[in-house]
Order: sequence, then C-alpha cells, then structure tokens
Amino acid sequence: MPIDEVDTPALLLDLDAFEANLAALHDAVRGSGARVRPHAKSHKCAEIARRQIAAGAIGICCQKVSEAEAFIDAGIRDVTVTNEVVGAQKLRRLAHLARRARISVCVDDPANVAELSEAADRAGVVIDVLVEIDVGARRCGVPPGEAAVSLVRAVKAAPFLRFAGLHAYQGSAQHVRAVTERRQQAAFAADYAAVTRDALARYNIACETITGGGTGTYLFDAASRVYNELQPGSYIFMDADYRRNDWDDRAQFRQSLFVLTGVMSTSGAGHVVVDAGLKALAVDSGLPAVHGRAGLEYTKASDEHGVIGVADRAVRPRLGERLWLVPGHCDPTVNLYDHIVAYRADRVEAIWPVVARGALW
Amino acid sequence: MPIDEVDTPALLLDLDAFEANLAALHDAVRGSGARVRPHAKSHKCAEIARRQIAAGAIGICCQKVSEAEAFIDAGIRDVTVTNEVVGAQKLRRLAHLARRARISVCVDDPANVAELSEAADRAGVVIDVLVEIDVGARRCGVPPGEAAVSLVRAVKAAPFLRFAGLHAYQGSAQHVRAVTERRQQAAFAADYAAVTRDALARYNIACETITGGGTGTYLFDAASRVYNELQPGSYIFMDADYRRNDWDDRAQFRQSLFVLTGVMSTSGAGHVVVDAGLKALAVDSGLPAVHGRAGLEYTKASDEHGVIGVADRAVRPRLGERLWLVPGHCDPTVNLYDHIVAYRADRVEAIWPVVARGALW
Repeated sequence: MPIDEVDTPALLLDLDAFEANLAALHDAVRGSGARVRPHAKSHKCAEIARRQIAAGAIGICCQKVSEAEAFIDAGIRDVTVTNEVVGAQKLRRLAHLARRARISVCVDDPANVAELSEAADRAGVVIDVLVEIDVGARRCGVPPGEAAVSLVRAVKAAPFLRFAGLHAYQGSAQHVRAVTERRQQAAFAADYAAVTRDALARYNIACETITGGGTGTYLFDAASRVYNELQPGSYIFMDADYRRNDWDDRAQFRQSLFVLTGVMSTSGAGHVVVDAGLKALAVDSGLPAVHGRAGLEYTKASDEHGVIGVADRAVRPRLGERLWLVPGHCDPTVNLYDHIVAYRADRVEAIWPVVARGALW
Repeated sequence: MPIDEVDTPALLLDLDAFEANLAALHDAVRGSGARVRPHAKSHKCAEIARRQIAAGAIGICCQKVSEAEAFIDAGIRDVTVTNEVVGAQKLRRLAHLARRARISVCVDDPANVAELSEAADRAGVVIDVLVEIDVGARRCGVPPGEAAVSLVRAVKAAPFLRFAGLHAYQGSAQHVRAVTERRQQAAFAADYAAVTRDALARYNIACETITGGGTGTYLFDAASRVYNELQPGSYIFMDADYRRNDWDDRAQFRQSLFVLTGVMSTSGAGHVVVDAGLKALAVDSGLPAVHGRAGLEYTKASDEHGVIGVADRAVRPRLGERLWLVPGHCDPTVNLYDHIVAYRADRVEAIWPVVARGALW
C-alpha cells in the first residue's frame, strides 16, 4: 500500500532510519564492554523488540509487569523490569513470569525485598534483583555508597532472590541540552555507581551488572567503564525534545517516527487545522515539529485538533493535504496508538501492533 | 469487589457524583428551551452515553468518524460529528453510518460540501449538515454573518445534504477563569450565531439547530435564547483544570473522575513516587491534584512515575499506600484507559469499556 492511502492520523516508522539507528547504536558501543538492553517502554512493540535483539541486544527493559507479560507472551525471553514492583497482586504476576523467562526487577526498600522474596517462594522461582540507587534524578532509589550496601545485604539474605547488580539510571540527565553539562551529569551518575560497587567490594559482594544510561548519555555511559549494560529507548525513534539536545556527531540518531496528519480546515486566516491533537500526540515535552515544511508551525493542540500557523512567506497547505509531524516526546505518543505503520520510501511494508499499549499495571 | 482490591493505576468513576452531575445539568437547563446533546469525546464510553440519554439527552456528539462508529455499534441512534470530515475514506464511512443512525456533521469549506454530498449519494443517504462558524476560538469555521450564508447556500444546493443549522462552539471560552469574562465570551459567541441566523433569515433560510456550549459556559448558553442545543462533555467528570475556573454556585459540578495510584517508592527525602505518570494522566492542562490529602503535591510526571512532594507538616504516605488523583484534563486522560471502574462508596459496581479509546480516524 502506498503511504498516500494511509488514513490520518497515523503513527509512521521510517524503516530505513529505524534500521540505521539500530546499527548506529551497536556500532557506537562496540568494544566498550557494555551490553545493550534497550528500553521497550518507548515502543511497546514486540516486532521492534525482536529486531533489537536480532541487532545484538541481550534482552529488553520494561517499566511495568503488564508490559513484561505482553513481551514474554510475544516470545521475548529476557526482561528487566527497571522499576520497583509493589503489592501482592503485581508481585504474584511478576513471580509467575519468572517461570517463563529470565526476569530481573529493581528494589529500593527492605519491606519490598521481603514481599518479593515471598512471592518468588510461592511461585517456586528465584528472581534476579537489582538494587536501584539514586544517581542524581531524585526519583526512586536508595542513596549510593554505604547506604545501598545494607539493602544489597537484605537482598542477599532473602532466600528466593539473587542479587544481580545495581540499577543506576539518571533520567533527567538525558535531556540536558549542552553536551558538556550532559557529560558531567552522566559522569556523576557513573561515579555514584562506582562508589557503590566499591563499597560492596569491601564486603566481598560482587556486582555482576551495573545498568543504566539512555539515548542522551549512552556514549558517555559506555565509555565510563562503570556501566556494563545500557538501556536506551528513544534512539530508535528520536523526537522533537531529544532533537533540542546538542549532540556529538557520533551520538546522533535519525528521526524515524512521525505522526501523519491531514488538513481538515483551511478557513482560518493565518492558520490551518489538522486532525492530530492531544489524543494523537503527547505534548508534555513540547508541541510537535512540522517536518520538512518551512514556515509552518504547530502552535496549539486541543483534544482532536492541531492549529498550524502559516507564515506569510510559506506555502499554505490545502484542504486534505497531509503533513508529517515529529512528536515532542516519543514514548507517550506511541502509547496512544494500537499500530505502528512501518514504511520504506513511499510504501507501507508492515503494520506492527503496539502490544503493550496501555499496559499500566 | 472492594475498591481496595483494584490494582493501580486505575481510572475510577464515583457513581454518586456522576449521577448527581447528570441530574444537575438537566435541572439547570430545564425550561431554557435548549436540548442537551453531550459530547462523548470526553468519555468514549457507551454505558455513559446510554445513561446520558436516559437522563434526557437527545443523542451524543463525537469528534471522529471512528468514535461515531463505536457508539453506533453500541446502539446509540443519534450522533452529531462536531467536526469537519475530510477525504474519501472517512466520508465513505460516515455516509455508511447514516444508513444506521441519524448522523449530522460540520462543514466549513465548499469543496468539502461537494465531496460530502457525493459520498452521501454513493451510500444512498441524505446527510444532515451543520455549517460551522468561528465564534471566537479561531480554530475551524467560516466567519459569522454574511460570509457564512454562501456556504449555507452551497449546502442547500447540494443534492444529498440537508442544511440542519449552525455549529457555534467556543472552546477557548470554557476555561476562562473569571465568571464575568467567561460570560462575556459566551455572549460574543451567541451574538455571532444570532447575527448569522438573522442573515440567513433575510434569505428565508430557517436555522433549525444552533448548537454549541460547553461545561464552562452552558448556563450562559442556555440563557442566551440563541443556542437550542448544548454539547457539554466534561460536566460528568470535572478535572483539575475546570476546577480552577471560578463558578456560579448553580453551575458547579462534583468531581467524579479519579486516577487511583499506588506509592511505589518512599526512599527519597521530601517526596514519594507513585505508579501513575504520563501514560496514566494527561498533563497538557497541568499536573494532577492529590485528592483529600493535605501537604501532598504531584510535582513531576515522567513516563511511568509521578513524584509527590511531601510537605514537612504532612503525613508521609507509606509504601503501597494508594492516593487519589484528580487529572488535569479529563478527556485525554480517559483516552489512556481501556476501562472505567465505576464505584459507589467503597465497592466497585461495574467495569465499563472505553469503547472509543484510541478512535482517531
């Protein structure tokens, strides 16, 4: 099917750019000693996970048990839940997944360690556990260094858990614009992880995995010699927010993700209206960019409408014309769609279900 | 099932508040001469549409053909698409719906009038058409007054369309905070509609329906004696943004919609982390409010996490404790969920599918 026949709004993936991004990531980190475990929260799509693994990834990351369930149902066999899982219902489901796949999960609380071990016992499994340390993002995680050691010892003492390493993700560093500042924040995160690893070594506790890093910092993380596992997510897609970062040439990825939208009203003066609004585009990290059309700016989103300002010098879009938008933030945008329309040049090659869309639990 | 057993995050509807809101709307507009056609873009839920109609609504509004399809499949028999529908694919689907239900749709362009009439012809139907006028929101719609008359005449000249009236919705007026200013903007909108109605009368064209109004302005619209059909959507739910409006006592609705979230990390100093972030809550109109807990503030949303700041004097939430959040904006929040959990007091009464979730086309 030609792209021209895809009805709007639609979520499009440029396969050439996507494949180039897959290859670029592995090329960039090759020889660093760091494995790649991409974050599937960005795409929620089993076909993309399979292609990431075929390109060299060792498995995937998820944030929610229900995401892990969707991917394991689709045949993925190695999943890290990069998040705390709290409460008996979720822990029972998580423990059952460990019968079907290699599962690891984060903890940052001794009470949670106890309930996790109990759930593993009931399911007849041993679960790999990463102790999450706060490396600067001030979200989840125990403080690095000695404070983390006691939680690691609690994990090691829990009969149905295996201590697998440290989760040291610095989410807010990813979007720091200037390269030098971003590198600095990544270095702080790596230092916090190294300090914790060294504190554990003093107790003769080996730290098999130190995992973290994202699309904004992965080159620094790979070069740190602290992280041995990287979990970038957005690199396959990119978005308008990540494009506002300054980039080293070598770290740059191509834009592969677009929202195709149709012009549904041209009766306004100075603007046209498109059919993709708040339910077709996440705007938490800013409004989308209009791709490849000078003088057009997406200026306002309402539930089902987007207002596109048309500069005086610009070519005014016609009724029914289609525009390509670069979403402000890829992850929550993908979560609005049931399907990704994968295309090459001007032809649709495949429709991929977003199997973990809406997987919140 | 007790609410305590609902896993988080979940979208909850307080049935007492919802039913009170249904009744309050009809009580408030009774005797005004205005019919109520609630906007189903807010809830996307067939069960809610049925209850709105049982409470006295004449039918529903939708924004997208795919929403109309979902509601007509669920048995709703009178749907206005309060939006322009552009392109052969969508128009073919719209025209086929007109075989199964009473359908009306907006236009603001003569070329669209022509393609709509052609689609109606092919489907063997006559479609009711509302001419959309721009009453101040500067989005879709032709200018009011004489400029609108020529488009109305084009509709009347189209063989398979029936001119049904004017669509005169002022979306941006709904969220104007001060009552006096909001009333003023509603009055401007009603004046624009009246001017257009009067211009049509000079050509002996009757204007059967003048539809518009929303949750923020419905009392003014009902009192205008211009609008004879009102299309509020959010009144059944309310949200943190609408609650920031000043309200006449009589116009106020109760908060019925909540996102139930669980505390998943308490290791940070001065904050806890909950399991509802950008994929569980729309933040376009601001962050959610924490319901009924003094000293707690939702300060930051990331994809799957919400950071809740805890004031010094506040009771610190425990790990696994559940908090009730009032979404910033109800419509795009509901669109993130497959189900609404309808409860009364502390018991779940029903789980209602969000049948038009993700209906973008």
